[in-house]
Amino acid sequence: MKHYALIVAGGSGTRMGSTIPKQFLLLCGKPVLMHTLEQFYKADNNTQIIVVLPASQSEYWKELCKQFSFTIPHQVTIGGDTRFHSVTNGLNLVPDYCLVAIHDGVRPLVTAALIHTCFEAASKNGCAIPAIPVHESLRRKNGDVYEQVDRSDFYLVQTPQCFNAGMLKKAYAAATSSHYTDDASVFEAGGHTIYLIDGIKENIKITTPADLTMAEGYLKLLSL
Amino acid sequence: MKHYALIVAGGSGTRMGSTIPKQFLLLCGKPVLMHTLEQFYKADNNTQIIVVLPASQSEYWKELCKQFSFTIPHQVTIGGDTRFHSVTNGLNLVPDYCLVAIHDGVRPLVTAALIHTCFEAASKNGCAIPAIPVHESLRRKNGDVYEQVDRSDFYLVQTPQCFNAGMLKKAYAAATSSHYTDDASVFEAGGHTIYLIDGIKENIKITTPADLTMAEGYLKLLSL
Repeated sequence: MKHYALIVAGGSGTRMGSTIPKQFLLLCGKPVLMHTLEQFYKADNNTQIIVVLPASQSEYWKELCKQFSFTIPHQVTIGGDTRFHSVTNGLNLVPDYCLVAIHDGVRPLVTAALIHTCFEAASKNGCAIPAIPVHESLRRKNGDVYEQVDRSDFYLVQTPQCFNAGMLKKAYAAATSSHYTDDASVFEAGGHTIYLIDGIKENIKITTPADLTMAEGYLKLLSL
Repeated sequence: MKHYALIVAGGSGTRMGSTIPKQFLLLCGKPVLMHTLEQFYKADNNTQIIVVLPASQSEYWKELCKQFSFTIPHQVTIGGDTRFHSVTNGLNLVPDYCLVAIHDGVRPLVTAALIHTCFEAASKNGCAIPAIPVHESLRRKNGDVYEQVDRSDFYLVQTPQCFNAGMLKKAYAAATSSHYTDDASVFEAGGHTIYLIDGIKENIKITTPADLTMAEGYLKLLSL
């Protein structure tokens, strides 16, 4: 089946203390989002890449692509008010009979190997959701109290989350709420069982300046 | 009140795919544990630093200190079979009337600023536990099912966890189980309310090779 990648990049710069949306901040001299696209291209240059951006950012992205001579083929589509609506818009460009990976634009350290594993597992199981165990103590806020929970029961969910596109599109069309934090949850609400695979720790979501510095340091060491 | 820091370093190299315990792996040319001690010394060079190590590692640590001309003053004491027993042993060297910070040896990116904030908050509230919100989707294993939970209710708990030493020592002495993953949980079991403060994202726990590379890259960028 053909592979699609939907790269969702709807973030603002709020938590970054920056006016530049975090997907456009420079990582080793290049916008974060370009690193992300490169990994999907590297995994398989036949993958159809679709970037979902807020309307206010699409022109800026085009300018960045020119400025950085960024030539990786991709489509751009406009997102909605929430992540749910952005993915819905993106899925309109994806045919039913294919596999689609949905990925956070601000996870540039994803590897070609993880992308491969996700597509492979999704082709067998209908979906594949990378997740990693929690290595820190975990607490749940319950009113004014932060109560202990057993961390060994919990998993941090990453992206790319890969799906049979037809099944995911039906689940999105049938969803009765837009308050999902990821696609696995929408898929599940559509009556499907999710299938977890091992994520990788370096596949961090860049949401703070510390994350950006960590990612930059990591990439610089890898390129030595 | 006088400040003590109990640095707990009981790990093996298992998850690292290394036979060298992770606290001794080289980070920017120096064992991880030395970086950790340096941050406490930098925060306040009057802090009494106690390192808790497995019996099998204490000689090796002494050799490393010689080899790296590591001169930061500290005591070494021998840990027990579990983290609980290691902290119990360490607390035997801490007087009641002081503040004690308990810290994972494999969190070398802790900052002097965070250490200060923890001691300060603990002096007012009896304890201070740094924690950060969860930025990724979270799932809980329930039998064969990985069910969604609302990530906005959850917090990842870091160290240093700072306490009024007398209160913590009583809680340790009264504990009826040794299956706690952190000191806040023991403190709470002793009847006290825990007080959370903002942790920092870069204060990662080094448990995998990817973590080590990320930490090394981060430190190298900071030192530019």
